[in-house]
Amino acid sequence: MTRNSPAGTPLGDSFHVYDTTLRDGAQREGISYSVGDKLAVARLLDGLGVGFIEGGWPGALPKDTEFFARAAAGELELRHAVLVAFGATRRAGTKASEDPQVRALLDAQAPVVTLVAKSDRRHIERALRTDVAENCAMVRDTVEFLVGEGRRVFVDAEHFFDGYAYDPDTALRVLQSAVDGGADVVVLCDTNGGQLPLPLAETVAEVIGRTGFRVGIHCQDDTACAVANTIAAVQAGASHAQCTANGYGERTGNADLFAVLGNLVTKLGMPVLPEGGLAELTRVSHALAEIANLAPDTHQAYVGTSAFAHKAGLHASAIKVDPELYNHIDPAAVGNDMRVLVTEMAGRASLELKGREFGLDLAGHPEALGSAVRKVKELEARGWSFESADASLELLLRREMHDGESEVDAPPFVLESYRVVLDHRPDGVVVSEATVKVHVDGERVIATAEGNGPVHALDAALRKALRPHLSWLDSVELADYKVRILTDHPGTDAVTRVLVESTDGEREWTTVGVHGNIVEASWLALCDALAHKAMRLREPASH
Amino acid sequence: MTRNSPAGTPLGDSFHVYDTTLRDGAQREGISYSVGDKLAVARLLDGLGVGFIEGGWPGALPKDTEFFARAAAGELELRHAVLVAFGATRRAGTKASEDPQVRALLDAQAPVVTLVAKSDRRHIERALRTDVAENCAMVRDTVEFLVGEGRRVFVDAEHFFDGYAYDPDTALRVLQSAVDGGADVVVLCDTNGGQLPLPLAETVAEVIGRTGFRVGIHCQDDTACAVANTIAAVQAGASHAQCTANGYGERTGNADLFAVLGNLVTKLGMPVLPEGGLAELTRVSHALAEIANLAPDTHQAYVGTSAFAHKAGLHASAIKVDPELYNHIDPAAVGNDMRVLVTEMAGRASLELKGREFGLDLAGHPEALGSAVRKVKELEARGWSFESADASLELLLRREMHDGESEVDAPPFVLESYRVVLDHRPDGVVVSEATVKVHVDGERVIATAEGNGPVHALDAALRKALRPHLSWLDSVELADYKVRILTDHPGTDAVTRVLVESTDGEREWTTVGVHGNIVEASWLALCDALAHKAMRLREPASH
Repeated sequence: MTRNSPAGTPLGDSFHVYDTTLRDGAQREGISYSVGDKLAVARLLDGLGVGFIEGGWPGALPKDTEFFARAAAGELELRHAVLVAFGATRRAGTKASEDPQVRALLDAQAPVVTLVAKSDRRHIERALRTDVAENCAMVRDTVEFLVGEGRRVFVDAEHFFDGYAYDPDTALRVLQSAVDGGADVVVLCDTNGGQLPLPLAETVAEVIGRTGFRVGIHCQDDTACAVANTIAAVQAGASHAQCTANGYGERTGNADLFAVLGNLVTKLGMPVLPEGGLAELTRVSHALAEIANLAPDTHQAYVGTSAFAHKAGLHASAIKVDPELYNHIDPAAVGNDMRVLVTEMAGRASLELKGREFGLDLAGHPEALGSAVRKVKELEARGWSFESADASLELLLRREMHDGESEVDAPPFVLESYRVVLDHRPDGVVVSEATVKVHVDGERVIATAEGNGPVHALDAALRKALRPHLSWLDSVELADYKVRILTDHPGTDAVTRVLVESTDGEREWTTVGVHGNIVEASWLALCDALAHKAMRLREPASH
Repeated sequence: MTRNSPAGTPLGDSFHVYDTTLRDGAQREGISYSVGDKLAVARLLDGLGVGFIEGGWPGALPKDTEFFARAAAGELELRHAVLVAFGATRRAGTKASEDPQVRALLDAQAPVVTLVAKSDRRHIERALRTDVAENCAMVRDTVEFLVGEGRRVFVDAEHFFDGYAYDPDTALRVLQSAVDGGADVVVLCDTNGGQLPLPLAETVAEVIGRTGFRVGIHCQDDTACAVANTIAAVQAGASHAQCTANGYGERTGNADLFAVLGNLVTKLGMPVLPEGGLAELTRVSHALAEIANLAPDTHQAYVGTSAFAHKAGLHASAIKVDPELYNHIDPAAVGNDMRVLVTEMAGRASLELKGREFGLDLAGHPEALGSAVRKVKELEARGWSFESADASLELLLRREMHDGESEVDAPPFVLESYRVVLDHRPDGVVVSEATVKVHVDGERVIATAEGNGPVHALDAALRKALRPHLSWLDSVELADYKVRILTDHPGTDAVTRVLVESTDGEREWTTVGVHGNIVEASWLALCDALAHKAMRLREPASH
């Protein structure tokens, strides 16, 4: 059998970072991994340096069976991690060696098996419909059989905290059966997620004190305390932490792997990742969101794009001087960045700081800075908001600095006019059609296209007009589109603010448009999106 | 001065649920409350039963100044909560009574003032550029002055935990100055959000032990532990917890009010809300997300739509028999539902209840109820949401019950077709024009009108067509209009959800429309708005 403990991590086998994104994380509503996805997730997690990767439940889920087969066939080479197969103990009244589910665990050929065992007497009696003695025999027999077959075995004690509170003797008997069978780690699971850190830490310490077993922790987030509970358990003596990427999981999810890693390394000083691993947190988190087809949580601890974003306001100048006074860690340590948001309170200091992010020396151009501050304030008074539209702000600052004279910042085309026609026809079908007249490369181009709605039609017509002239156009896609109606700008009717997020597969950028007419607001944001891409192509080195 | 402690909550003044959504929560990227929004947020929080509502920073932000002025003028009547104005201490080297910022706090007329004070020596010296003695004098003087003017004063000790770790004497001196000045509560703030619950609880207990002061807690979520830290602080003796709705706030956000309330009430058994408050958690959380124009977090603890959703899998039958074995609390306790499992039953029960609100006996019409449940489910799968669109739901239920046969529910007109034309002219002016063809009172009417944008033009044309036939038309006005793009309905392109709030001067009602085309979605919501008014005129006694 191959290696069954982590390789190349400073703490080796003495502390387990155990990832269950591919099994428990996949319980999240909306996640449906293909086998290819699962292999990609495992490679990313291994690259980050986790110790164990639970790949799924072979025998119960066909996709998981296939995943293990392809991994065993050489499609998954792990540098740091060990692959784990998850499964249940033998059924009541059968032999472990003859249980097809247990055999499927062997067939998966993973060096480690994690078995789930019931440790709450109510679940044993009411859900499993057996008694404590038989439940314990099921655990011991199955572990023993798998260990006899050369596997390293961990046991997840399901509903442990509720079970321990209800009937501690039964809960401890189940742990004892696992260890008697040869299990290496017993994992205390807060399956229903109802725990809080202080009492949980007491229970963990008490169980370790009473048994001396090696204990792991597995927390669900139903009290919004999964990360805290995991850390508290480690502080209380647990040396194996089960997490999922971005906290994916059933209901409210599991303990977020990235927050747990950030806390273990930067707060508790535990070197649980290989050299360089911590700086990969942000990248890996976003890549895993991509594979799960879920938008990254912008406010996620350590790795969110807003995790180190400051609405500068009154503190802008202080943040500029002493960023370390305003961040709990250096964002670069986890591969993230500090951002300063430009808001109503924007002043010279925060715009100057922002310019520096874009590689623009506004401090050296005080007049341009003054004029940019006035312009931003005036636009914000009319409902514009640049705090999440960095690309529009960058264009504005560059144009102020270059006074509209630079080729680099010039828009890639000029609009003459557009017309959008929406028809709700008598048969109930709604049709949108747009025509644009633009000037590009010295030519006047007219194009018409249809779309699902007015903005889509306009975007389609513009692309049709520009495609022959801008070779890069089709690499730019709309990633997200947000609309907000602002009703309280006195003196005017409601205005509409549109935020457009674009992507070219490599980077994402956000632009803003504001107008009384939603279609014109969208148009302004779309134009900035293309202008920003054109600018980057002309001056690729600016970042 | 008016009441300065919470009313009608079981724990009275002995425990403070202190909400800072309107001040610290508004620091979240993307949130930009209007004054009307702020009043609506405060009313919802008061209805839930929080003890204190921090309304903003008068004098520093014009919108906040206006909010307090309108609140003082009678636009905000609080049943439970006390309104709080937030601000800074006097500047170094000035008198509190002459500092314009301090005067603005008085002018706000809130019975309670929370002052922010620096308690980390590094911040005092490097950001404030003064010394500890002057900083302490600034705190004491300002508190003393405000207390002398009849205010109750709390002091937020900014960066307390970092400051206490770096130089405990300075941190404690700042607290002492606040109490010397007459402050009622000193709030220990984890401003940079780097704390973990076990050490934080030790610090809180130590500070209380050394000073005997009444201590509050304010946590940011940078370690994903804000809720856990808040609860741990309460367990260590803090009796004042500062939170924000849905955890809104700068960077990763603040401690989520709803998770903290859920934990305090259901886990620690502290009756911090008035009778019935807990069951409002889910509704209020979603309504506040709506006002912030942010999608509710589906996986949020206690209140997320997935918080009690089970991918039933192997446990389906067990969950059905013993749901309490698989949920950490009864979801109904916080106004939430268990999903996936028995949606049909839950759907019937809640729609029946809703029907009763509208004066409809759906229990007596089981077939209509079944068909309504199917229809609502189907619409919700396509992106409709009736949570905040009672008027559209009422129309749907009535039409199901009367099988489309009732005169009362009949729409006041029938659409044949409409056309909207948007022109961005070469001179840069954007013009919107709409033509509608409708049938009303047996007549076919065609009308054309212009507007600021496509929806406005369409509304104007419709009104022009209907005005001669519907005498009440001009009493109905658009009060609010919200748009959300839904990108996560797999298998389709993005759809747009529009919520329209209408008013006739006496009541307000909200309708919803969903379509791939934003103009059609708006049209659907507008039609429901008029249909609902027509229905009420025909059957005024239904409420």
